[in-house]
Amino acid sequence: MPKLDLDAIPQTNHTGYPTEYAQEVAGRFYRRIAPETGLTDFGVSHVTLMPGAWSSQRHWHEDEDEFVVILSGEAILIDEDGRTPMAAGDMAAFPKNDGNGHHLVNESDTDCMFVVVGRPAAGACHYPDVDMHIFGDGAGFRRKDGSAFP
Amino acid sequence: MPKLDLDAIPQTNHTGYPTEYAQEVAGRFYRRIAPETGLTDFGVSHVTLMPGAWSSQRHWHEDEDEFVVILSGEAILIDEDGRTPMAAGDMAAFPKNDGNGHHLVNESDTDCMFVVVGRPAAGACHYPDVDMHIFGDGAGFRRKDGSAFP
Repeated sequence: MPKLDLDAIPQTNHTGYPTEYAQEVAGRFYRRIAPETGLTDFGVSHVTLMPGAWSSQRHWHEDEDEFVVILSGEAILIDEDGRTPMAAGDMAAFPKNDGNGHHLVNESDTDCMFVVVGRPAAGACHYPDVDMHIFGDGAGFRRKDGSAFP
Repeated sequence: MPKLDLDAIPQTNHTGYPTEYAQEVAGRFYRRIAPETGLTDFGVSHVTLMPGAWSSQRHWHEDEDEFVVILSGEAILIDEDGRTPMAAGDMAAFPKNDGNGHHLVNESDTDCMFVVVGRPAAGACHYPDVDMHIFGDGAGFRRKDGSAFP
């Protein structure tokens, strides 16, 4: 059955972020669609941002395109250009290596649901607001000077 | 600006289908998002299905995953398993080579909008209901016996 039964797909708010940067995404609950459905060409996540939650720390990828479409509720897209309200039906595209750190923040008092598409790559990821970086060497999150988090 | 201005993106109901199979998709108007935004890892189209319109002839790809999320309105997902109503927020995944010919049909009296994601590949595409096939040789649509359309 190609139609997804969302309730049957595991939902988690797990993050690989170090503790000091994890609180902002504690209210971000997501379901990974691709592994549940056999898709391999790209990844898809269905995300619920609870009030106050961030989609991620503001970031940009050197090697991965991202695409977002809002399904319900509202969020603020925050990037180098400022603040842009996003509501149901609104879409945003983040081409790889654009240098435009971005995230979505739910400043409303109701949940915001969106779908995000990407094709995860091994390359670097930049976080302009926090002392965190992915170097693209498979070692995950480290400080910008290359040192490990506690 | 990562947020898309839909009105600024060209919309078309162009189809490469031969005339005899084109009428069903005449009310399918779409915008290709990737070329307008610099995305290259995958393709994204924003589609408006007018009342009566089909998303495509029923088909399945040997080499291309597809993912659909409904933004507004309603459509019927028709595949080998039968008919499945789809409404705003509903999603469907079509992994490559699943042999499950599928399409969306708007049987309602209002527009249905959805987003479809794929990573177009050169491989074959099968159309179980009509005498049409893509052989994956770059020649586009032909009859199942390999002959050209008029």
